[in-house]
Amino acid sequence: MAPRKQREIFDATLTLLARRGYESLTIEGVAELSGVNKTTIYRWWPSKPALLAAALVEADALALDPPDTGSLRGDLEALVDGMIALLTRPPSSEIVVAALGAAVHHAELNIGGFFADRFAREQEIFDRARASGELAATADPMTIVDLLAGAVWVRAVFRGLPVEPGFARRAVSAVLDGVGSGATG
Amino acid sequence: MAPRKQREIFDATLTLLARRGYESLTIEGVAELSGVNKTTIYRWWPSKPALLAAALVEADALALDPPDTGSLRGDLEALVDGMIALLTRPPSSEIVVAALGAAVHHAELNIGGFFADRFAREQEIFDRARASGELAATADPMTIVDLLAGAVWVRAVFRGLPVEPGFARRAVSAVLDGVGSGATG
Repeated sequence: MAPRKQREIFDATLTLLARRGYESLTIEGVAELSGVNKTTIYRWWPSKPALLAAALVEADALALDPPDTGSLRGDLEALVDGMIALLTRPPSSEIVVAALGAAVHHAELNIGGFFADRFAREQEIFDRARASGELAATADPMTIVDLLAGAVWVRAVFRGLPVEPGFARRAVSAVLDGVGSGATG
Repeated sequence: MAPRKQREIFDATLTLLARRGYESLTIEGVAELSGVNKTTIYRWWPSKPALLAAALVEADALALDPPDTGSLRGDLEALVDGMIALLTRPPSSEIVVAALGAAVHHAELNIGGFFADRFAREQEIFDRARASGELAATADPMTIVDLLAGAVWVRAVFRGLPVEPGFARRAVSAVLDGVGSGATG
């Protein structure tokens, strides 16, 4: 399939997801909005969850371009600011929150694949930090990402509180410097 | 309403939520399972979200008894272990994951109230740690809780990965000691 056509299908999928929610999303609706024949869509993605899973990984709206600011602290703050934008600014927030909310009930959405893909891209941040000596030898990158991404999710989505301007700086400082009285922060 | 009767209503609400999901939860169903007249339930909780919000805050299955282990590190590890149990062990995991998943789409569920209630109870952990000098003066308790709770949620629910035995220790160490090379961890 031509990349442009594929992108139109994915964009239509995510637009409908944000507009109507996962339950009301249909391949027929995607066909109508994208102008691509329904049979063609089914040939490539045999089911709604398969189509949505592919759209989430490939879509421009959710693309992760790992930051490279020159320091681990700067990279992690930029990463958290990106997560905040993703979860609080339309249209990405409507797409991501709808997709992640639906994923909780629909294992077939394989949202783990979406997270695994992002983590693979984030890896270079930690590779550089290890090379530059900015990361403790015992540090576990996935735990760091889960702490930071999870904090944004809990604050913005579960608590429904505004994510204040200093949030990324404070969250990253907690994880890099520590909040214990013996830590450097 | 007698506390025992109220508890039966809440238990029935959460049982049905876990069994059928939020969309299929009805006050009629709660009345049937609890044996309490539907009119009585409506008199106390005028809507399904109002009933569920109350059930989530009051239910025994989700009760938070803040740990008091003698150290901030021990308290936070126990808190994280409690969150892991809540999100991975039935029946609480079925209830909490269904409720939090639904809350994403249904603001009327006021899941923020559930989190605010838990945070109020967690406050004593941080009060003790400040008094004992275990917490850096600049540390922000809500950020700490959001990092830790969020990490469990991302790992267990979004990534769908097993939460390995050392997870609580490692996550708490990251936040208390820091993972930067200049930190104490």
